[in-house]
Amino acid sequence: MFAPIYLDHNATTPLDPAVLSAMLPFFSEQYGNPSSRHEYGRAARRAVDEARSQVAAAIGAHASEVIFTGSGTEANNLFIKGAAATCKPGVLAVSTIEHPCELKPAEQLARQGWQLHKLPVDGEGRLLDDDFATALTLKPKLVSVMLANNETGVVQDIAALAEPAARVGACFHSDAVQAFGKLPLDFRRLNTVGVRAMTISAHKIGGPKGAAALILDKRVELQPLLAGGGHERGLRSGTENVAAIVGFGVACQLAAGRQAAYAQRLLQLRLTLEKGLCALGAVLFSQAAERLPNTVYFAIPQIDGETLVGHLDRVGYAVASGAACSSSQPGPSHVLQAIGVPPDLARGAVRVSLGETTQAADVDGLLQTLRITLDQLRHLPAMERAALVSAA
Amino acid sequence: MFAPIYLDHNATTPLDPAVLSAMLPFFSEQYGNPSSRHEYGRAARRAVDEARSQVAAAIGAHASEVIFTGSGTEANNLFIKGAAATCKPGVLAVSTIEHPCELKPAEQLARQGWQLHKLPVDGEGRLLDDDFATALTLKPKLVSVMLANNETGVVQDIAALAEPAARVGACFHSDAVQAFGKLPLDFRRLNTVGVRAMTISAHKIGGPKGAAALILDKRVELQPLLAGGGHERGLRSGTENVAAIVGFGVACQLAAGRQAAYAQRLLQLRLTLEKGLCALGAVLFSQAAERLPNTVYFAIPQIDGETLVGHLDRVGYAVASGAACSSSQPGPSHVLQAIGVPPDLARGAVRVSLGETTQAADVDGLLQTLRITLDQLRHLPAMERAALVSAA
Repeated sequence: MFAPIYLDHNATTPLDPAVLSAMLPFFSEQYGNPSSRHEYGRAARRAVDEARSQVAAAIGAHASEVIFTGSGTEANNLFIKGAAATCKPGVLAVSTIEHPCELKPAEQLARQGWQLHKLPVDGEGRLLDDDFATALTLKPKLVSVMLANNETGVVQDIAALAEPAARVGACFHSDAVQAFGKLPLDFRRLNTVGVRAMTISAHKIGGPKGAAALILDKRVELQPLLAGGGHERGLRSGTENVAAIVGFGVACQLAAGRQAAYAQRLLQLRLTLEKGLCALGAVLFSQAAERLPNTVYFAIPQIDGETLVGHLDRVGYAVASGAACSSSQPGPSHVLQAIGVPPDLARGAVRVSLGETTQAADVDGLLQTLRITLDQLRHLPAMERAALVSAA
Repeated sequence: MFAPIYLDHNATTPLDPAVLSAMLPFFSEQYGNPSSRHEYGRAARRAVDEARSQVAAAIGAHASEVIFTGSGTEANNLFIKGAAATCKPGVLAVSTIEHPCELKPAEQLARQGWQLHKLPVDGEGRLLDDDFATALTLKPKLVSVMLANNETGVVQDIAALAEPAARVGACFHSDAVQAFGKLPLDFRRLNTVGVRAMTISAHKIGGPKGAAALILDKRVELQPLLAGGGHERGLRSGTENVAAIVGFGVACQLAAGRQAAYAQRLLQLRLTLEKGLCALGAVLFSQAAERLPNTVYFAIPQIDGETLVGHLDRVGYAVASGAACSSSQPGPSHVLQAIGVPPDLARGAVRVSLGETTQAADVDGLLQTLRITLDQLRHLPAMERAALVSAA
């Protein structure tokens, strides 16, 4: 089989072979429902309990603070809507660069009487301190700011944001789906300064799709989105996805264990890639901000992003033209709009996200291929090029 | 490894080996996010599309009517809360014997201004026609009645219920999680007489945990519970659990293909089991009602159900004392209460649910083991027996 080089780890990651090995028994002989009181059920329950401890240990939380969900989207919706349902409508503050699974629930709440305040970012994609301070004067009940952005990779100092937010009584949540595994992360420490909840997801760290968690300070009251049998302390009913949860536990353990070395290795590759891209005339987004070690977001002036991604795909490189979590969002990325990137340049956006399987040769190969591809695209007759761009 | 005989298929089923084979490539080389526009993403998208067609074909629906969710609980919550969110509060009618993942969301709506009408059942667990007719005079906006009950296995004639419900303008939903694969099921035919939505789940039919679907008439407007990237026609955001969805598709295909032979085979085993149980002095619940071919729900007077299930577990038979989907619900089953079973007898409830892997020898072995176990339990000194019962 022809296997293109995968450079889209922010969209999803290959399953780690050790994770798959850990999952397999729960597809075959250990297929019980954890709620059953016979040996099959007890074995499944033990597996879920162990995975919960692994997830907790990896993120510096207590096992009782781990609420398993089916996706990061579900964990974000659970926090925002679940917390909002326990109090009267008030002010809700989220950053303009959140993932749609934060923005959309926030907009749903805005239609139900909540006052939605969107926190702006500067030209590098960092939250603006003054605007954040102003937002806090509105006494928001809920604040959600992602730890690292999925497109730009920009990291926010959420400890510095959570502390003043907690002082005005806000319940502070952070979507850490992209940060976990790439940055050191300690929920206990963040909780001490006011972070009350955090979202992490298995399939972004070498785990399976279908498992994620809301890490939740137990003092926070939530109403479940999925009500029923009372699973997950009554906060998320539904038969536990045992195999996926087991895989999530192992993936968390691996991710936390290798995080420092992983980040160092990928940062070197990222710097090589960035240097090469600049030599090709690329504009790097958020270049001056603190960013994830694996993420490069760039545009090459006059070159359409979709077209470039299509070309790279055909010659064996899988990269993204924008946020791949969103099924169908035509037009420029809302993140680049928030940063103030001109629409012309934003249309050229390409995201390369490195991961566990990425080797130096992959980065070198990508740069070489880009050089050839750009040469071809730049020398196409004007007509053909216009056709390519409009077909994208 | 010691593998007890598994007779708890209504709680969950062993994964069919053909299903696992179909899933495996999506854990290893085909790990893409279906929203990605490169080859990995397109391969994942094709797999989800194919699974959607398989699910649709198996249940007599159109692929565009299949909304994938992470669990049956989620599909039921999505229907009830999602439909309720699109209109002003009114009357909501659900049967008293629904699964908690129907009853709990209904109760959440009741706290938000909806008038919850619980439809009673007769002594066999069948909906009462007169009471249903009376409920319709209240002009309910939403009606939900499960097709087959998870504890008793009693089948409701939902076509006969949906037709008059549709005439008064109600949107009718049925939880078909237990019925699918065991009874012939055709959404198109049911839709014609007024069934607007139906829930099915993978792990009850030899598929994996983590995939289920709401089959939905596209004229029904729903608000998503999980908002975000706009997956599943905007009705359920979150990265698709590709491997589980692929497994669900294959499981549906297998289940629909073998349904008639499967039902016939299990019915014979069920009748043998029931005959043997009656000879041991068991009371069969809902004996006179039309029931699933695989489900036997009984009590042996003076014998505590939990105690009996514990004994059977130790000697190698995995059966349930009640609804295993519910994590922690002490006290007698709400289904047996609804049927009017006296609390003393209800405490004795044991559910045996047969499945694909069940053989005649398993049923014979269970009866023989029960005979010995009951003999032991009945001849225990009164003190020891009381201790056993209270420890249960």
